[in-house]
Amino acid sequence: MALDPTLAHTWLQTALAEARTGLAEGGVPVGAALFHRDGRLLGQGRNRRVQESDPTIHGETDAFRKAGRQRGYRQTVMVTTLSPCWYCSGLIRQFDIGAVVVGERRNFTADLDWLRGAGVEVLDLDDAECIAMMRDFIAARPDLWLEDIGE
Amino acid sequence: MALDPTLAHTWLQTALAEARTGLAEGGVPVGAALFHRDGRLLGQGRNRRVQESDPTIHGETDAFRKAGRQRGYRQTVMVTTLSPCWYCSGLIRQFDIGAVVVGERRNFTADLDWLRGAGVEVLDLDDAECIAMMRDFIAARPDLWLEDIGE
Repeated sequence: MALDPTLAHTWLQTALAEARTGLAEGGVPVGAALFHRDGRLLGQGRNRRVQESDPTIHGETDAFRKAGRQRGYRQTVMVTTLSPCWYCSGLIRQFDIGAVVVGERRNFTADLDWLRGAGVEVLDLDDAECIAMMRDFIAARPDLWLEDIGE
Repeated sequence: MALDPTLAHTWLQTALAEARTGLAEGGVPVGAALFHRDGRLLGQGRNRRVQESDPTIHGETDAFRKAGRQRGYRQTVMVTTLSPCWYCSGLIRQFDIGAVVVGERRNFTADLDWLRGAGVEVLDLDDAECIAMMRDFIAARPDLWLEDIGE
Protein backbone atom coordinates (compact mmCIF):
# COMPACT_ATOMS: atom_id res chain seq x y z
CA MET A 1 0.00 0.00 0.00
CA ALA A 2 1.39 3.40 -1.00
CA LEU A 3 2.39 5.84 1.72
CA ASP A 4 -0.29 8.26 2.85
CA PRO A 5 0.99 11.84 2.33
CA THR A 6 -0.97 13.15 5.33
CA LEU A 7 0.56 10.53 7.61
CA ALA A 8 3.99 11.13 6.04
CA HIS A 9 3.66 14.81 6.82
CA THR A 10 2.99 13.95 10.45
CA TRP A 11 6.12 11.78 10.49
CA LEU A 12 8.11 14.61 8.94
CA GLN A 13 7.49 16.71 12.05
CA THR A 14 9.76 14.38 14.05
CA ALA A 15 12.55 14.84 11.51
CA LEU A 16 11.96 18.60 11.40
CA ALA A 17 12.23 18.87 15.19
CA GLU A 18 15.62 17.12 14.96
CA ALA A 19 16.75 19.51 12.22
CA ARG A 20 15.75 22.54 14.31
CA THR A 21 17.69 21.14 17.26
CA GLY A 22 20.72 20.70 15.02
CA LEU A 23 20.44 24.25 13.79
CA ALA A 24 20.25 25.55 17.37
CA GLU A 25 23.39 23.56 18.18
CA GLY A 26 25.28 25.20 15.33
CA GLY A 27 25.13 22.11 13.18
CA VAL A 28 23.92 21.19 9.72
CA PRO A 29 20.10 21.24 9.98
CA VAL A 30 19.12 17.89 8.54
CA GLY A 31 16.95 15.62 10.65
CA ALA A 32 15.55 12.16 10.07
CA ALA A 33 13.43 9.46 11.62
CA LEU A 34 12.98 5.77 10.89
CA PHE A 35 9.40 4.58 11.23
CA HIS A 36 7.79 1.22 10.80
CA ARG A 37 4.97 1.40 8.27
CA ASP A 38 2.60 0.59 11.11
CA GLY A 39 3.47 3.96 12.66
CA ARG A 40 5.99 2.93 15.30
CA LEU A 41 8.95 5.28 15.66
CA LEU A 42 12.14 3.17 15.62
CA GLY A 43 14.77 5.89 15.80
CA GLN A 44 15.33 9.57 15.20
CA GLY A 45 18.46 11.64 14.75
CA ARG A 46 20.19 14.55 13.10
CA ASN A 47 23.37 15.54 11.34
CA ARG A 48 26.06 16.00 14.00
CA ARG A 49 29.18 16.60 11.93
CA VAL A 50 29.89 19.79 13.86
CA GLN A 51 28.61 18.76 17.26
CA GLU A 52 30.60 15.49 17.41
CA SER A 53 33.31 16.32 14.87
CA ASP A 54 32.08 13.19 13.11
CA PRO A 55 31.53 13.32 9.35
CA THR A 56 29.70 9.97 9.33
CA ILE A 57 26.69 11.26 11.30
CA HIS A 58 24.13 12.39 8.74
CA GLY A 59 20.49 12.66 9.75
CA GLU A 60 19.59 9.36 8.12
CA THR A 61 22.55 7.38 9.47
CA ASP A 62 21.89 8.76 12.96
CA ALA A 63 18.22 7.72 12.88
CA PHE A 64 19.24 4.30 11.54
CA ARG A 65 21.82 3.89 14.31
CA LYS A 66 19.35 4.91 17.00
CA ALA A 67 16.99 2.19 15.81
CA GLY A 68 19.63 -0.35 16.86
CA ARG A 69 20.07 -3.77 15.29
CA GLN A 70 16.99 -4.78 13.32
CA ARG A 71 16.39 -8.04 11.54
CA GLY A 72 15.02 -6.41 8.41
CA TYR A 73 14.01 -3.01 7.07
CA ARG A 74 11.60 -3.75 4.22
CA GLN A 75 8.64 -2.51 6.28
CA THR A 76 10.42 0.63 7.47
CA VAL A 77 10.27 4.18 6.15
CA MET A 78 13.18 6.62 6.30
CA VAL A 79 11.82 10.13 6.77
CA THR A 80 14.31 12.93 6.17
CA THR A 81 14.07 16.70 5.88
CA LEU A 82 16.37 16.72 2.84
CA SER A 83 16.69 14.36 -0.10
CA PRO A 84 19.41 11.84 0.82
CA CYS A 85 23.00 12.15 -0.39
CA TRP A 86 24.75 9.15 -2.00
CA TYR A 87 26.04 7.95 1.35
CA CYS A 88 22.54 7.83 2.82
CA SER A 89 21.04 6.55 -0.42
CA GLY A 90 23.52 3.69 -0.25
CA LEU A 91 22.44 2.96 3.32
CA ILE A 92 18.80 2.82 2.22
CA ARG A 93 19.57 0.52 -0.70
CA GLN A 94 21.93 -1.82 1.15
CA PHE A 95 19.56 -2.41 4.04
CA ASP A 96 16.52 -2.61 1.78
CA ILE A 97 14.58 0.13 3.54
CA GLY A 98 11.20 0.00 1.83
CA ALA A 99 10.33 3.65 1.50
CA VAL A 100 11.75 7.15 1.82
CA VAL A 101 9.88 10.36 2.63
CA VAL A 102 11.85 13.48 1.76
CA GLY A 103 10.93 16.90 3.09
CA GLU A 104 12.37 18.50 -0.02
CA ARG A 105 14.80 18.01 -2.88
CA ARG A 106 15.17 21.60 -4.08
CA ASN A 107 18.31 22.41 -2.12
CA PHE A 108 20.08 19.10 -2.66
CA THR A 109 19.57 15.65 -4.06
CA ALA A 110 21.69 12.71 -5.14
CA ASP A 111 19.32 10.70 -7.35
CA LEU A 112 15.90 9.69 -6.11
CA ASP A 113 15.32 7.78 -9.34
CA TRP A 114 18.28 5.55 -8.46
CA LEU A 115 16.44 4.62 -5.28
CA ARG A 116 13.17 4.10 -7.16
CA GLY A 117 15.02 1.84 -9.59
CA ALA A 118 16.19 -0.22 -6.63
CA GLY A 119 12.58 -0.77 -5.56
CA VAL A 120 12.34 1.97 -2.92
CA GLU A 121 9.06 3.90 -2.70
CA VAL A 122 9.84 7.63 -2.69
CA LEU A 123 7.53 10.41 -1.56
CA ASP A 124 8.68 14.03 -1.89
CA LEU A 125 6.60 16.33 0.31
CA ASP A 126 8.16 19.54 -1.07
CA ASP A 127 7.67 21.07 2.36
CA ALA A 128 8.01 24.84 2.62
CA GLU A 129 9.61 24.83 6.08
CA CYS A 130 12.23 22.26 5.08
CA ILE A 131 13.04 24.24 1.94
CA ALA A 132 13.42 27.54 3.79
CA MET A 133 15.50 26.09 6.64
CA MET A 134 18.01 24.51 4.29
CA ARG A 135 18.12 27.46 1.89
CA ASP A 136 18.85 29.86 4.74
CA PHE A 137 21.51 27.56 6.21
CA ILE A 138 23.33 27.14 2.89
CA ALA A 139 23.32 30.93 2.43
CA ALA A 140 24.63 31.51 5.95
CA ARG A 141 27.22 28.70 6.16
CA PRO A 142 28.26 27.62 2.65
CA ASP A 143 31.60 26.37 4.07
CA LEU A 144 29.93 23.87 6.40
CA TRP A 145 27.44 22.79 3.81
CA LEU A 146 30.04 22.08 1.14
CA GLU A 147 32.15 20.19 3.66
CA ASP A 148 29.15 18.08 4.57
CA ILE A 149 28.55 16.95 1.00
CA GLY A 150 32.25 16.55 0.22
CA GLU A 151 32.61 19.47 -2.17
CA MET B 1 49.23 8.16 -11.33
CA ALA B 2 47.68 4.72 -10.92
CA LEU B 3 47.96 2.97 -7.58
CA ASP B 4 50.97 0.73 -7.11
CA PRO B 5 49.76 -2.82 -6.28
CA THR B 6 52.79 -3.52 -4.10
CA LEU B 7 52.19 -0.39 -2.04
CA ALA B 8 48.46 -1.16 -1.93
CA HIS B 9 49.22 -4.59 -0.56
CA THR B 10 51.25 -2.99 2.22
CA TRP B 11 48.31 -0.73 3.05
CA LEU B 12 46.00 -3.74 3.07
CA GLN B 13 47.90 -5.12 6.05
CA THR B 14 46.51 -2.31 8.21
CA ALA B 15 42.97 -3.19 7.17
CA LEU B 16 43.64 -6.90 7.65
CA ALA B 17 44.91 -6.32 11.19
CA GLU B 18 41.64 -4.51 11.98
CA ALA B 19 39.62 -7.38 10.50
CA ARG B 20 41.52 -9.90 12.62
CA THR B 21 40.85 -7.83 15.73
CA GLY B 22 37.16 -7.73 14.83
CA LEU B 23 37.09 -11.49 14.41
CA ALA B 24 38.75 -11.98 17.80
CA GLU B 25 36.11 -9.70 19.35
CA GLY B 26 33.31 -11.85 17.92
CA GLY B 27 32.46 -9.30 15.27
CA VAL B 28 32.14 -9.23 11.49
CA PRO B 29 35.74 -9.41 10.21
CA VAL B 30 35.92 -6.49 7.82
CA GLY B 31 38.64 -3.91 8.33
CA ALA B 32 39.51 -0.74 6.50
CA ALA B 33 41.96 2.13 6.44
CA LEU B 34 41.91 5.54 4.81
CA PHE B 35 45.27 6.60 3.41
CA HIS B 36 46.43 9.71 1.64
CA ARG B 37 48.03 8.85 -1.70
CA ASP B 38 51.28 10.15 -0.29
CA GLY B 39 51.25 7.25 2.19
CA ARG B 40 49.95 8.95 5.31
CA LEU B 41 47.48 6.87 7.32
CA LEU B 42 44.46 9.08 8.10
CA GLY B 43 42.24 6.60 9.91
CA GLN B 44 41.66 2.89 10.40
CA GLY B 45 38.71 0.93 11.71
CA ARG B 46 36.59 -2.19 11.56
CA ASN B 47 33.03 -3.38 11.48
CA ARG B 48 31.65 -3.12 15.01
CA ARG B 49 27.98 -4.02 14.57
CA VAL B 50 28.26 -6.68 17.25
CA GLN B 51 30.74 -4.98 19.56
CA GLU B 52 28.84 -1.67 19.77
CA SER B 53 25.38 -2.91 18.76
CA ASP B 54 25.67 -0.30 16.03
CA PRO B 55 24.67 -1.27 12.48
CA THR B 56 26.19 1.90 11.00
CA ILE B 57 29.77 0.93 11.83
CA HIS B 58 31.15 -0.85 8.79
CA GLY B 59 34.90 -1.05 8.31
CA GLU B 60 34.93 1.76 5.77
CA THR B 61 32.67 4.13 7.71
CA ASP B 62 34.73 3.52 10.85
CA ALA B 63 38.00 4.33 9.10
CA PHE B 64 36.39 7.42 7.55
CA ARG B 65 35.12 8.56 10.96
CA LYS B 66 38.49 8.02 12.60
CA ALA B 67 40.05 10.32 10.00
CA GLY B 68 37.94 13.14 11.43
CA ARG B 69 36.75 16.15 9.46
CA GLN B 70 38.73 16.55 6.26
CA ARG B 71 38.42 19.30 3.71
CA GLY B 72 38.52 16.99 0.73
CA TYR B 73 39.04 13.33 -0.12
CA ARG B 74 40.11 13.30 -3.77
CA GLN B 75 43.68 12.39 -2.86
CA THR B 76 42.67 9.69 -0.40
CA VAL B 77 42.43 5.93 -0.86
CA MET B 78 39.95 3.72 0.98
CA VAL B 79 41.53 0.34 1.62
CA THR B 80 39.14 -2.39 2.70
CA THR B 81 39.43 -6.14 3.17
CA LEU B 82 36.10 -6.72 1.39
CA SER B 83 34.52 -5.04 -1.63
CA PRO B 84 32.28 -2.25 -0.27
CA CYS B 85 28.54 -2.65 0.15
CA TRP B 86 26.15 -0.01 -1.24
CA TYR B 87 26.26 1.95 1.99
CA CYS B 88 30.04 2.23 1.89
CA SER B 89 30.06 2.71 -1.88
CA GLY B 90 27.73 5.65 -1.37
CA LEU B 91 30.11 7.09 1.21
CA ILE B 92 33.01 6.81 -1.25
CA ARG B 93 31.03 8.46 -4.03
CA GLN B 94 29.50 11.25 -1.96
CA PHE B 95 32.79 12.34 -0.47
CA ASP B 96 34.66 11.91 -3.73
CA ILE B 97 37.26 9.52 -2.34
CA GLY B 98 39.67 9.11 -5.25
CA ALA B 99 40.50 5.43 -5.07
CA VAL B 100 39.49 2.17 -3.46
CA VAL B 101 41.66 -0.87 -2.79
CA VAL B 102 39.65 -4.02 -2.09
CA GLY B 103 41.18 -7.10 -0.51
CA GLU B 104 38.69 -9.28 -2.36
CA ARG B 105 35.31 -9.33 -4.06
CA ARG B 106 34.65 -13.04 -4.19
CA ASN B 107 32.61 -13.27 -1.01
CA PHE B 108 30.62 -10.07 -1.52
CA THR B 109 30.37 -7.03 -3.73
CA ALA B 110 27.85 -4.31 -4.48
CA ASP B 111 29.05 -2.92 -7.82
CA LEU B 112 32.64 -1.84 -8.31
CA ASP B 113 31.79 -0.70 -11.83
CA TRP B 114 29.32 1.79 -10.35
CA LEU B 115 32.25 3.31 -8.46
CA ARG B 116 34.46 3.25 -11.55
CA GLY B 117 31.71 5.02 -13.47
CA ALA B 118 31.73 7.73 -10.83
CA GLY B 119 35.43 8.32 -11.43
CA VAL B 120 36.82 6.21 -8.59
CA GLU B 121 40.00 4.22 -9.28
CA VAL B 122 39.45 0.62 -8.13
CA LEU B 123 42.15 -1.95 -7.45
CA ASP B 124 41.13 -5.50 -6.49
CA LEU B 125 44.02 -7.35 -4.84
CA ASP B 126 42.18 -10.71 -4.75
CA ASP B 127 44.06 -11.47 -1.56
CA ALA B 128 44.04 -15.08 -0.37
CA GLU B 129 43.96 -14.24 3.35
CA CYS B 130 41.02 -11.83 2.94
CA ILE B 131 39.13 -14.41 0.89
CA ALA B 132 39.68 -17.19 3.42
CA MET B 133 38.84 -15.06 6.47
CA MET B 134 35.51 -13.91 5.03
CA ARG B 135 34.61 -17.30 3.59
CA ASP B 136 35.19 -18.99 6.94
CA PHE B 137 33.24 -16.30 8.81
CA ILE B 138 30.22 -16.55 6.49
CA ALA B 139 30.23 -20.33 6.90
CA ALA B 140 30.47 -20.06 10.68
CA ARG B 141 28.04 -17.16 11.29
CA PRO B 142 25.63 -16.83 8.35
CA ASP B 143 23.10 -15.14 10.66
CA LEU B 144 25.44 -12.28 11.53
CA TRP B 145 26.64 -11.91 7.98
CA LEU B 146 23.15 -11.68 6.48
CA GLU B 147 22.14 -9.19 9.17
CA ASP B 148 25.14 -7.05 8.32
CA ILE B 149 24.22 -6.78 4.65
CA GLY B 150 20.51 -6.38 5.34
CA GLU B 151 19.36 -9.74 4.00
